Parts: sequence; structure tokens; C-alpha cells
Amino acid sequence: MKKFRVAIIGATGAVGQEMLRLLEERQFPIQEIHCFASPRSEGKTVLFQGKPLTLEALTEKSFQSIDFALFSAGKSVSSIYAPMAVASGCTVIDNSSAFRMDPSVPLVIPEINVHTLKNHHGIISSPNCTASVMLLAVAPLHRKVRIRRIMATTYQAASGAGHQAMVELQQETYATLENRPFHRSVMPHPYAFNLFLHNAPMTPSGYNEEEIKVVEESRKILQEPELRIGVTCVRVPVLRAHSEALNVEFEEPLTPAQAKEILQQAPGVIVLEDWENNRFPMPSDASGKDEIYVGRIRQDLSNPNTLDLWVVGDQLLKGAALNAIHILEYLLEFPKFLD
Amino acid sequence: MKKFRVAIIGATGAVGQEMLRLLEERQFPIQEIHCFASPRSEGKTVLFQGKPLTLEALTEKSFQSIDFALFSAGKSVSSIYAPMAVASGCTVIDNSSAFRMDPSVPLVIPEINVHTLKNHHGIISSPNCTASVMLLAVAPLHRKVRIRRIMATTYQAASGAGHQAMVELQQETYATLENRPFHRSVMPHPYAFNLFLHNAPMTPSGYNEEEIKVVEESRKILQEPELRIGVTCVRVPVLRAHSEALNVEFEEPLTPAQAKEILQQAPGVIVLEDWENNRFPMPSDASGKDEIYVGRIRQDLSNPNTLDLWVVGDQLLKGAALNAIHILEYLLEFPKFLD
Repeated sequence: MKKFRVAIIGATGAVGQEMLRLLEERQFPIQEIHCFASPRSEGKTVLFQGKPLTLEALTEKSFQSIDFALFSAGKSVSSIYAPMAVASGCTVIDNSSAFRMDPSVPLVIPEINVHTLKNHHGIISSPNCTASVMLLAVAPLHRKVRIRRIMATTYQAASGAGHQAMVELQQETYATLENRPFHRSVMPHPYAFNLFLHNAPMTPSGYNEEEIKVVEESRKILQEPELRIGVTCVRVPVLRAHSEALNVEFEEPLTPAQAKEILQQAPGVIVLEDWENNRFPMPSDASGKDEIYVGRIRQDLSNPNTLDLWVVGDQLLKGAALNAIHILEYLLEFPKFLD
Repeated sequence: MKKFRVAIIGATGAVGQEMLRLLEERQFPIQEIHCFASPRSEGKTVLFQGKPLTLEALTEKSFQSIDFALFSAGKSVSSIYAPMAVASGCTVIDNSSAFRMDPSVPLVIPEINVHTLKNHHGIISSPNCTASVMLLAVAPLHRKVRIRRIMATTYQAASGAGHQAMVELQQETYATLENRPFHRSVMPHPYAFNLFLHNAPMTPSGYNEEEIKVVEESRKILQEPELRIGVTCVRVPVLRAHSEALNVEFEEPLTPAQAKEILQQAPGVIVLEDWENNRFPMPSDASGKDEIYVGRIRQDLSNPNTLDLWVVGDQLLKGAALNAIHILEYLLEFPKFLD
């Protein structure tokens, strides 16, 4: 079996660490692996298959003997180094927002639009985590009955702001419980037993950049450039799974039972609803799981042809690292996509 | 100045404790105060004006020398004892859901519908906390431009489930951080760094009882029996302030600037929005405050004539205890309502 030379850029981050774990766990055929991180981590090590790998600093030449580069070190790192990687003959899977809306770059959730992979020119983008979790639930429904409008309200975990945000949430909460002072360095607002509207930069539209990503990336992935999407993104004191309340208006009737049946067949989706016991998906169900969880599929009593769905997914997995690895696995399975 | 004999039913609960504190702080003219609690608290004491008051057990005769009885001990206690109190000549302000939808009982948020007080026959209901927080923000807008549909998605604090739920959230979180086992007795699901759809009993409509209260009580208070309201109630690991993402569709255009101006004039409302610094209301702002906070008033990009609002209010204060005390104060200010 052919083996590949893989690079992880951002290997010490929350997503980078999950990528390493997934490559190991899913026995990806690795010939060589190189881990890159910011200069402050240079010389440190990360573990892979039980062995320490020394972190390297990125240079123009880093990609000369790499087949696949998985980027998860933020937009500015991807903007600079992904084109260099492509120029070195490397195929890039980018978890940042740098290229997602570039018309020449496929934005891929394999369960939904793997066919768009064939159009890539070296870079493939993996979408925003909030959009991914939402789309895994709504795309299968949209395929059966066209969606007219989506209203999404989110409950986003600390992991979306990185590993240090998860650590800080725990430390701040601990300090709060022990009545100790705490100095925050990652989050802009108190987070222990508190919540706040997503702190992504505001845009003139009144939507912040996180919300704009959800709108634009969803439209691109669903290939519906005019789809009406309203969204409110909120950070809640949860560690690593995003929850979303979705209100979905369809162009024609779709019953909760029909939607449930569609979602039970949908790849990457687990339907969890126990109406009798009032038991629906929670972050504690979805954390560490490959699938997203959907439940409480009900008729919106305030509008015809409209369903409410409750969706929960691990932000670090299908929301980020796992989706990137899925893209990589599809590339291997269908090597024609590599040409 | 005339002084009154007041009873608090449920005096050891989170709301009862706030009622006692508010009566003291607001220097309500008290001649005598009697505190009642469940039999398991009988003989224990609560503090009022620095002095211990012995808790009494409710009987048919408890109300014989009481002017005002404030009930906050749940629906079943109110159902049994509020009519007895009325029969004894007492005026009841009930924080439970027992009589809220009774057409002969006014359901009052004084800032919105104090005029309905005049119709009372001894019992006045104070609304559900989630409905109250929402209505303080939407009623002033509705008065200017008629609302067509409200979509509410909530982030509800532990306090809504009572004092023990707040204690349990802290204890469970502490245990989680220290990797100790923890046995829950109040909440049905893990709550530390987790969240879940509101655990009120489910109804055949697919809405749970909390959500049905928001729909029905809002319609009654706004005097709009057909108003379209969709709602999803979620419990988040926050201690005592509820947050709500509201999507409000109007029958005619209303700009964010116009809505902001209306809300800046609205009683009981503080508008907090700093777009430049991405700073909007949080539970930590509203906890312990008498007003509800509204911010991030923006145009919904997915629908015409529709605004998104973000509202946060202390569940125990304007959501419960403070609203009951406000009703009591209005009764004194307008004694005609007491006839």
C-alpha cells in the first residue's frame, strides 16, 4: 500500500492535536510526518504513535517533500504558506477561513459535496465548525424539500477559540468557585458561569464574522447563493461541543416524522430523541464523537412548513479535524481527485 | 403611613429569599411578616431586617390576619392555598403558574399592563420568568409597530430550577474540575460545562411546558391571542440571569435605530450596546439588577421587517421576585385596585 508524507501545521493547537490523534487512530498510511508550530513552540515535541516528534518552524522549503499538508494555524499562516505548499507540489487541506470563499477552492464536507473535490487546484478548504454542524443536519433535508430560510442560534463551546480557551474556562471557573482572583488572557469577557455573544470582529451588516461565515459558507456548500440564513452566535461555558437551535422553513410541507426518517439515513448523523423521557442531544453526548447528533425535530407552531431541530456536534472533530481527515481519506480513495 | 401584614409562602426558596430582601431594601411598610415554608423547614428561621423569623407551616387559618400573601412555592401549593387566602380576605400575588391563564386572573407586568390589575378578584399572577424578560423588551416595540411573529431561543440559568439547582451546578462543576464523582439530585442531566433542552414536561405539541408558558402568557399579556410565537428553551450552566435571542418580525418596517430609541425610553429596560467594542449584555451584567438589558439590535438579513434583539435579565428579580413586589407596590400606590 502506498504511504504518504504528511505535514500538520499548527500541531500544538486543539485541532492539530486531534488531527494527529485521528491519523494515528484511523491508521492513515504515513511514510513520514512533519509537525509545524509557531516559533515559540520550536524545538518542543508532540507525540505521534507514542513517539516524540520535534516541532519545526515553517519556511518556504518546508513542503518540498510533503504530499499532504493539513493547515490549522489560523488565516494568516494559511494565506502565506498554503500557496507555497501548493507550489511545492503539495495538496493542502486548510482548516482556516483563508480560502473558503475563493471560487476556485472547493469548500468540502464529504458527506454533502464530495463531488466538488474534483475542481481543486491544490487547496481544499474545510468549513467553519458552526456551519459544518448545521449543514450535516440541514443538507439532507434540503435535498428532499427545498429550504426557504434557516434561523440558527448557537451555543458554542470554548474549543472554538482554541486549546488555551478551554484551559482558561476551567481555570477561571475553578478560581470563581474558590473565590480567588483570576486574570483572563484569552477570552474578552467573564466566562465562568457566564456567556456572551461571539467575539468575532463585527461587520457593518451587524453580523459578526463568525455569523457571516455561517451564512456564506452554507450558501457555497449547498450551492444556493441566495439562501436566506439568519444567525446569532453565542459562546457558552461548555468545553468542546457546539449546540445549535435551528428553525428551518421549507418551500413545501415536511413532517417531523419525514425529517427524522431522512436524518436517520443521513451519513455522519445520529438521531437522538426520546420524547417520553425528554432526552435530546447534549454536548456531553457529542463530545469526542465522530457524528453530529440531531433531535427534538418538531413542527414550529408559529409558521407553516417550518421545523425546529436541535443539533449538537463536536467542534474539534466533525467541526474541524475530523472533516479535514475525511477530505484526506476521500482523496486517497478517489485518487482521480489528486490529479 | 399605613402598614401591612404580609405573608411569604416559599420563604426559603431562591425567589422567596429575594422577596424578603426586596421588601426590606425597598422599605415596604410592614406591620407584621409571616414566612411559610414546606413542612421540612418548619421551626427553622429566615432573616428579615437582621432578625430571625420562625418558619410556619401553612394551614387553612394561616391567612386570617394577613393583607397580602406572596406565593412562590410552586403550582400545587398555590392551587390549594391561594383560594383559602382570598377567602380570608387576603390579596394574593402568585408567582406560580397555577392561575396565570385563568381568564379571571390578571397576569401582570406593571410596566406593560398595570391597567389589568383593576380586574382582579383577590389573585394576581406574576408571569413566567422567560416570558417576563422577553416581554419587557418586545412590548414597547409592539406598541409602536405591530409584531407579526416572535422566535425566541433561550439561555436559561440554574436559578429557574430553584436555589438547590444553583448550589448543585456549583458543586457539580467543582467536582468535575477536581475529577471527583458527583451525585446529582436536582437536575436530570449533567450540568457542569454542559447544557440541555429545558426539562419541563413535554406536551403533545412538541413544545415543553416552559415553552407553552412563554407562548400563552405572552399572548395574554400583549392581549394578542393569536400572536405567532415560536420558542426553544435551553438550560445553560449560568447561575441566575436568563439570556434570550429574539427574532421579531413586524408588520411594517422598524429600523434598529428606531427600536433602540423606543427601548431607551422603555421602563425597566437598559439598552447596552457598544458595537465598536463588540460589547453587549451578558448574564454577569444583569445578575442582581432590577432592569433587563437589551442590546445588539440589528436587522435580520434573512427577512424583511425583522429585527434580532439580545435580551438578558435577572431571572430571580424582574423574572420573579421583583415583579411580584412591583405588583404589590402598585396596589398600594393605586388603592382603588384593592377594592
